[in-house]
Amino acid sequence: MAKDFSTRTENYSKWYNDIVQKADLAENSAVRGCMVIKPYGFAIWEKMQAALDQMFKDTGHSNAYFPIFIPKSFFSREADHVEGFAKECAVVTHYRLKNAEDGSGVVVDEDAKLEEELIIRPTSETIIWDTYRNWVQSYRDLPILVNQWANVVRWEMRTRMFLRTAEFLWQEGHTAHATKQEALDETRKMLDVYADFAENYMAVSVLKGVKSENERFAGALDTYCIEALMQDGKALQAGTSHFLGQNFAKAFDVKFTGKDGKLDYVWATSWGVSTRLVGALIMAHSDDNGLVLPPKLAPFQVVIVPIYKNDEQYKLVCQKGDQIFDLLKQKDIRVKFDNRDTHKPGWKFNEYEFKGVPLRIAIGPRDVENNTVELARRDTLEKSVIAIDQIDKVVSDLLVEIQQNLLQKSKDFRLSKTFSADTWEEFNEILDEKGGFIYAHWDGTAETEQIIKDKTKATIRCIPLQNQEEKGKCILTGKPSSQRVIFARAY
Amino acid sequence: MAKDFSTRTENYSKWYNDIVQKADLAENSAVRGCMVIKPYGFAIWEKMQAALDQMFKDTGHSNAYFPIFIPKSFFSREADHVEGFAKECAVVTHYRLKNAEDGSGVVVDEDAKLEEELIIRPTSETIIWDTYRNWVQSYRDLPILVNQWANVVRWEMRTRMFLRTAEFLWQEGHTAHATKQEALDETRKMLDVYADFAENYMAVSVLKGVKSENERFAGALDTYCIEALMQDGKALQAGTSHFLGQNFAKAFDVKFTGKDGKLDYVWATSWGVSTRLVGALIMAHSDDNGLVLPPKLAPFQVVIVPIYKNDEQYKLVCQKGDQIFDLLKQKDIRVKFDNRDTHKPGWKFNEYEFKGVPLRIAIGPRDVENNTVELARRDTLEKSVIAIDQIDKVVSDLLVEIQQNLLQKSKDFRLSKTFSADTWEEFNEILDEKGGFIYAHWDGTAETEQIIKDKTKATIRCIPLQNQEEKGKCILTGKPSSQRVIFARAY
Repeated sequence: MAKDFSTRTENYSKWYNDIVQKADLAENSAVRGCMVIKPYGFAIWEKMQAALDQMFKDTGHSNAYFPIFIPKSFFSREADHVEGFAKECAVVTHYRLKNAEDGSGVVVDEDAKLEEELIIRPTSETIIWDTYRNWVQSYRDLPILVNQWANVVRWEMRTRMFLRTAEFLWQEGHTAHATKQEALDETRKMLDVYADFAENYMAVSVLKGVKSENERFAGALDTYCIEALMQDGKALQAGTSHFLGQNFAKAFDVKFTGKDGKLDYVWATSWGVSTRLVGALIMAHSDDNGLVLPPKLAPFQVVIVPIYKNDEQYKLVCQKGDQIFDLLKQKDIRVKFDNRDTHKPGWKFNEYEFKGVPLRIAIGPRDVENNTVELARRDTLEKSVIAIDQIDKVVSDLLVEIQQNLLQKSKDFRLSKTFSADTWEEFNEILDEKGGFIYAHWDGTAETEQIIKDKTKATIRCIPLQNQEEKGKCILTGKPSSQRVIFARAY
Repeated sequence: MAKDFSTRTENYSKWYNDIVQKADLAENSAVRGCMVIKPYGFAIWEKMQAALDQMFKDTGHSNAYFPIFIPKSFFSREADHVEGFAKECAVVTHYRLKNAEDGSGVVVDEDAKLEEELIIRPTSETIIWDTYRNWVQSYRDLPILVNQWANVVRWEMRTRMFLRTAEFLWQEGHTAHATKQEALDETRKMLDVYADFAENYMAVSVLKGVKSENERFAGALDTYCIEALMQDGKALQAGTSHFLGQNFAKAFDVKFTGKDGKLDYVWATSWGVSTRLVGALIMAHSDDNGLVLPPKLAPFQVVIVPIYKNDEQYKLVCQKGDQIFDLLKQKDIRVKFDNRDTHKPGWKFNEYEFKGVPLRIAIGPRDVENNTVELARRDTLEKSVIAIDQIDKVVSDLLVEIQQNLLQKSKDFRLSKTFSADTWEEFNEILDEKGGFIYAHWDGTAETEQIIKDKTKATIRCIPLQNQEEKGKCILTGKPSSQRVIFARAY
């Protein structure tokens, strides 16, 4: 592993990009704004998917798949949605290429123009609600609890690997309910699922809240979110759950007959998280030595590296290495034994440290003699020598401890970076000097929020759930406010 | 479940469509040629994915993700590939919509025209080999064993749910090797994986072989395939594995330094199966009572239906039902207890029979008295009464037996529909009257194959692996032939 990467203080942005590229997580592709997710990066996403998918199923949801194409006219059906979504997107206009007459390659066949252009889904509410119309007649057909794992495209001008890419992978849940209350309960239930996942799998402490009108999903009545704090003091929206009311049901004419025999529109929610979470994971825990991964999402939780000077020693330590590998495997620990003879131990140490493997086991000839190994923790960089006969127990316990330690660090960090501001000056000072979440009074208008954003680049991240009522004055306008909201600069 | 569906003899094609739609597997969408895969259909695909993904990982492969967009010019890089693939495809020409001036909705923003059009991937060799160029310098970087689960788009004019849709889901493996032999070994290894999956999960007997030049993948030196036989006597290509030689490495300039210090182009394979397999699964086993699913891929392997006349009986049988449910769950059997009070037992019987649930357990008040249940097999429609205390063992054994029985039936069917033809008349007679696989002599030329296809709609499905040498005369031209090949009409 080359040492040519930035530290956080030198250049936070380059530090992030260096980790993404040098830890083999992803790279830019030949297509503007689209990344290639490399096997090591994809393995993290797979672990996230598996955990989330199980959580969705445990809460009664099933997966389905809807077309990637959305007829252009669908976007105009829900007024807010078209404003928010149908602008920067990939438009399919033709369905055929032909050989260029001059033999220079292929060109678009102008005879194969679509009657109506197709949009690559930026999100699937429209095509899904157009489908639900046929699935729902009576209250007996409700609820519909469906999730989709899919790729979506939003033609972002400024992209950044994992955090903001033109094409990204995500899941989008789309549920249909007979009552408003049931839809609201679902919206909040899925927010809780996301918060549970962020904290207990990603080891990232998050704040739950509801968005202001400006930051709401296009077409939603309410957008709930979880917000995390990155090491540079900027916030990152890690997941959203939308209460859509009857907006999409009305736009796509989805009605049902209730128990009382009356026709009514169906109530809706949608909720999603994306490969952006991989970016959040990287930024939350990594340090100047590279990536740090929580054990629950690490492709490999343990790596075993043999130390040796000659063939005889190699054979000896590999024998022990194999034993340890088998022992850990039996405990369902994801372990890799890197017994390659083509790379030196020092190279391997750097490699796995940079790639964030939670635990490293080194085993040399003296260890074989003493029946010990050297154990190194990635999160604290602490080393210890332990007896081989305890190794499976010690490793299992340590993986739990590392997971907890990372979450605790994340919590402590978030709290240490959460401030209150009572004046405009104080607000700006904190933003520029400390960053983080700032509790401040706001007069509740979209105009004020926009002015604050224009002046400071800070946005209202959320109005926290179970927020305390507190009378005060808006930091910008001085107008009365009934509660503090959370501001931050954000990814 | 409505009884308004076709039988195979009445209308095979309608029978298939009725099963797809009425068993809630999929439906047509608002977008021409694209289907919606409904939760029950998607659950089958998920089971397929899980099994295949494990098989890929067990053979050393990792997943990754590459962009859905391919720059138009990439297709012209490999001469055969452009002929085969870059024609009927979705072309993205613009990246923005805007509000129509007349307020009628959104229109394409002509100012947002892409400099180079982007093609929605019909397959990813080009974008992947463009990426591999940066991944490979030395033999130490090889092999690359990567798989991608993705959606792809081919603008098919005539579509059919699961079997041929404009957008479909698939996996595509793309591997890079230092030697020709290694790439050939990989090609055949993945063919074996597919055959193993088809037989041991799908319970569909397949024939392994190699394609003739006409049927080869565009850009491959050899295409290996597994071919299955549907109940109407038509063949269905269920999976392909391509030996690509150095074609894509040359087109995208992917070279490596060998152990001997010499530069050479990398050797390649690609291999894929798609949601088409769900179509094959439906056609292979289903009968005039609806879908029949092999236990290993059934979303539910067992359904429990309570029989009762009043509340007291309902409570009684549900108590037993819960016990059985728990017992089977403990054995990791996928069991559903349909204790809904909104549907009658008869409706449920029809529903689960039509949806192909392998085993149905019915439990009524007399069963509770006798400590028995009624067990019904979907594959044979046989019923038996068994004691509750043996139920987990009986069910486990039966699931294995059903899986085996379906494979045996599929094998027997394939063999019973495999013929030899020595003359043109005989060939046509078998095609029209019996269908199936026909072993026949062929002079080895692409021209003859094309004429046979034009005259009879039959194509060479494959030259079977380990084919017997046998001198003969081409059924069409009478020219000499050294072996029989397999012809069939195909999906």
